Amino acid sequence: MLFFTQCFGAVLDLIHLRFQHYKAKRVFSAAGQLVCVVNPTHSLKYAPTRCAAAQESAEQGILPPCHHHEAVHDPQLVPCTCPLFSCPWEGHLEVVVSHLRQTHRINILHGAEIVFLATDMNLPAPTDWIIMHSCLGHQFLLVLRKQEKYEGHPQFFATMMLIGTPSQANNFTYRLELNRNQRRLKWEATPRSVLECVDSVISDGDCLVLNTSLAQLFSDNGSLAIGIAITTSKVHSSEAEM
Amino acid sequence: MLFFTQCFGAVLDLIHLRFQHYKAKRVFSAAGQLVCVVNPTHSLKYAPTRCAAAQESAEQGILPPCHHHEAVHDPQLVPCTCPLFSCPWEGHLEVVVSHLRQTHRINILHGAEIVFLATDMNLPAPTDWIIMHSCLGHQFLLVLRKQEKYEGHPQFFATMMLIGTPSQANNFTYRLELNRNQRRLKWEATPRSVLECVDSVISDGDCLVLNTSLAQLFSDNGSLAIGIAITTSKVHSSEAEM
Repeated sequence: MLFFTQCFGAVLDLIHLRFQHYKAKRVFSAAGQLVCVVNPTHSLKYAPTRCAAAQESAEQGILPPCHHHEAVHDPQLVPCTCPLFSCPWEGHLEVVVSHLRQTHRINILHGAEIVFLATDMNLPAPTDWIIMHSCLGHQFLLVLRKQEKYEGHPQFFATMMLIGTPSQANNFTYRLELNRNQRRLKWEATPRSVLECVDSVISDGDCLVLNTSLAQLFSDNGSLAIGIAITTSKVHSSEAEM
Repeated sequence: MLFFTQCFGAVLDLIHLRFQHYKAKRVFSAAGQLVCVVNPTHSLKYAPTRCAAAQESAEQGILPPCHHHEAVHDPQLVPCTCPLFSCPWEGHLEVVVSHLRQTHRINILHGAEIVFLATDMNLPAPTDWIIMHSCLGHQFLLVLRKQEKYEGHPQFFATMMLIGTPSQANNFTYRLELNRNQRRLKWEATPRSVLECVDSVISDGDCLVLNTSLAQLFSDNGSLAIGIAITTSKVHSSEAEM
């Protein structure tokens, strides 16, 4: 009996996901756009980590190990860039992607434009939604995080990091787009390198930030669809002068 | 001597404003776009007001006076819609604009696309930056507010309200755009009617919300340039189905 109940539950889940997928595709109506359903992970990494230690030392004026990697020219070991777990792994930048896939089971998607459908937005903070995105010959890490910067007031932070060096990251622009209920919010920026620590990008607030009420307006039945596009960056002459 | 010092100060101010105006024009490079320098006003309206009372009664399940005006068909008296002051004025919707200009000295600008250049972003909260915008045969009220929703953490809230009824407001879409430092943030939505109270729109967070660090990234020397565009709304068939 338990087996049949579980089977029925799984079928209902599949129908629900299929329906969400269909709706997300309809909102971002570009034909052939890939929709990826991303389940949340309750983040286990809230003990002081290598990145947190790096930030502390940066505040004290010591060159942090994260930034130390910025000017890597020779192959050097880099720490694990998974934002979820404190992982002792170290390796070359070129094998970070396979480490994230194999050890941390982070999915990878291919295509210039995808829709990231984060489910269960109502779960309590801290929670992360993470995928890798392969595009234009590079791999990017998309992180959506629910976090309480101010106690009792969770916010959502979304950013895209290049699995590469900061100088490689400067060649790209990423766009995150929310579109629902006659409202549209677009964030465009240069991706940061995973060597710069996703935690510090989020604590600086240099990313797409949503308060809970806005996240609810954009979400549908507890799921938030984020349209993602990556392009090679064009330097605007007017901005470059600034 | 004092006279010469004051004259010199005024000339320096003019040069500074001219420079800001030039830079804002360069960021939003559309030719002929009007740049309006908007000075802050320390909001005096933080005693319980008519709108606050309306919100309280709404929470208690009583139809608030603000919403009472939503379904106005015959000319009726509406309260003053100035977000800055608790003003006892009442009048017809058609004369709200002249009341705001004459009594509250709120400037009015004409044109489909303008740049709103808010100065002195570093002033402490609560502070408001307000102008009226005349476009497509209607007048809109643009409100940028610095407010501490969470004590010690000021945020910026920007919204556009139609000086008209909610059904008239549904015919328009407004866009607010920030563009600086290789980052771009766009917010598009249907304007709300001034009869719905700007305070409640901001407390609901149904507007463009910026935390202090993001506002600093987008501002230049304490001034924030917001590109504004208003269009007649097109109903997206895919969204209308949702």
